[in-house]
Amino acid sequence: MVEELMHAQAQRHHPDLGMALEHLLSSGGKRIRPAVALLAGGMLGGESSRLVTLAAAIELLHTATLVHDDLIDGALLRRGISTLNAHWSPAATVLTGDFIFAQAARLAAQTNSVDVMHLFAETLATIVNGEITQLFSSPGLASRENYDQRIHAKTASLFELATAAAALLSPVDDSAVETLRCCGYSIGMAFQIVDDILDFTGEQATVGKPVASDLRQGLITLPALYYLESNPDDERMQIVLENNHSSNEEVIQSLVASIRESGAIHYAMQDAKEFIQRGLELLCKFPDNEERNALEELARYIVNRQL
Amino acid sequence: MVEELMHAQAQRHHPDLGMALEHLLSSGGKRIRPAVALLAGGMLGGESSRLVTLAAAIELLHTATLVHDDLIDGALLRRGISTLNAHWSPAATVLTGDFIFAQAARLAAQTNSVDVMHLFAETLATIVNGEITQLFSSPGLASRENYDQRIHAKTASLFELATAAAALLSPVDDSAVETLRCCGYSIGMAFQIVDDILDFTGEQATVGKPVASDLRQGLITLPALYYLESNPDDERMQIVLENNHSSNEEVIQSLVASIRESGAIHYAMQDAKEFIQRGLELLCKFPDNEERNALEELARYIVNRQL
Repeated sequence: MVEELMHAQAQRHHPDLGMALEHLLSSGGKRIRPAVALLAGGMLGGESSRLVTLAAAIELLHTATLVHDDLIDGALLRRGISTLNAHWSPAATVLTGDFIFAQAARLAAQTNSVDVMHLFAETLATIVNGEITQLFSSPGLASRENYDQRIHAKTASLFELATAAAALLSPVDDSAVETLRCCGYSIGMAFQIVDDILDFTGEQATVGKPVASDLRQGLITLPALYYLESNPDDERMQIVLENNHSSNEEVIQSLVASIRESGAIHYAMQDAKEFIQRGLELLCKFPDNEERNALEELARYIVNRQL
Repeated sequence: MVEELMHAQAQRHHPDLGMALEHLLSSGGKRIRPAVALLAGGMLGGESSRLVTLAAAIELLHTATLVHDDLIDGALLRRGISTLNAHWSPAATVLTGDFIFAQAARLAAQTNSVDVMHLFAETLATIVNGEITQLFSSPGLASRENYDQRIHAKTASLFELATAAAALLSPVDDSAVETLRCCGYSIGMAFQIVDDILDFTGEQATVGKPVASDLRQGLITLPALYYLESNPDDERMQIVLENNHSSNEEVIQSLVASIRESGAIHYAMQDAKEFIQRGLELLCKFPDNEERNALEELARYIVNRQL
């Protein structure tokens, strides 16, 4: 139903917008955010049709930010499939992103909850502020604090929206909404850390983009942070970060091999597992039903996928 | 108060976003949309603080679409002042537009009206759909129907939002909301027609952009449509439309002179005046108070400005 609702959003509009939306929605994506929203709301007895609307709104918001993201990065591939800006002009890509924002906002309004609309708008502001901050910060300048802020803005904020908004649409009190928001935060943080690990350990065919794509863009993620902590004098890191985009492929490959062989991947995975553990503990506060079990399974899947 | 509220939207965010927002808000703009919202709501006894929030949300939505618009057109000047994309990278410009969308949505949510949020999201979809349609249509292919659709999407839709949302925040029934929406439509259509006339009759110093900027982009507006009706065989029109951007300056100047001297400007102005007349008639259905008088004055100003 979420899938159908998302596909229906280009009706009554310019046919090329429909084509673009089809292309974006058919290029895969695991629909984890909608799943989290549906399960969290289902666990709390929220009304199914409003949860479906919310789930579609969240995935479209996510999709819209990806469209502008890929344009900004000049990315030609996402999930192994060509991005919109690989085919379209920047103008059409900007407008398609805006159109999907509009449809996401329209669906969010259809939940008929002013609180959900508030959260929705705040989340968009958080995501964009995070991107702006990343755009304007010096490459290579990184700390754990920066990293946490960045992945919160980029990923965990949408998971918080999924769980908190689902709770808002369910017959529960404010403290349950806050607990569920924290739960979404923990799952989202774990999700992004694992994504950042897969960027080092995955194969291009599986991940759908070149290995160490973040490092190539001068971006330090958690595995690289842990590696730097134990190897502060590794000159290859400086070379890669300072010459981003034009770095010597051999240097990148040897650095990636060193990071893979170091304890960095293990430490990063420990952090992801701790976040998931925290999320699971928070879920224990809610009724033990089918939806809660499925949400717990989903949380465990997040740290176990593709490894 | 609207001005203050708009300026406050970059707080708690990246300082460069604050700078960008300051630049955008200080580059002028007549704030006609906020004025229409405040007066329409005031006329109906709407609560002032919610109307101020609505007015700021509408002006920020307008500002966000202008930021992406200028990026798409590659425009370096608006209202005679440099655009954001004249200084910033496309990436930063896209994100700044997105950020302003987010803040506009946040303010719209703060009106605490789900109906306002609906209208808000629909209006964004209408605006973007209009831009996409314009982007993908062949230059020069124009009819009165296309023109009306385009200026509705571009301009009148925001005036409809201003009046209808103001009515939704006021103690009136659905039929009053609909009447006020029609009133906003009429005023907005007139506003854009006059803008399109000024593009031919104004001086660069006053309008803040080169004369006949639409025609230079291969875009036919109402004065050109009326001119074509009486002079279907004027080859200069075809030359200008087919070679947009690279057109011979002499051909443009002589064509503009012919359009100015023809009856086209007069006919277009007649249409604008009819729209305003229709808007004024609709306003007569509401209580005759200070705000209504001011709104009527504003409507008359729209067709009398700078001519």
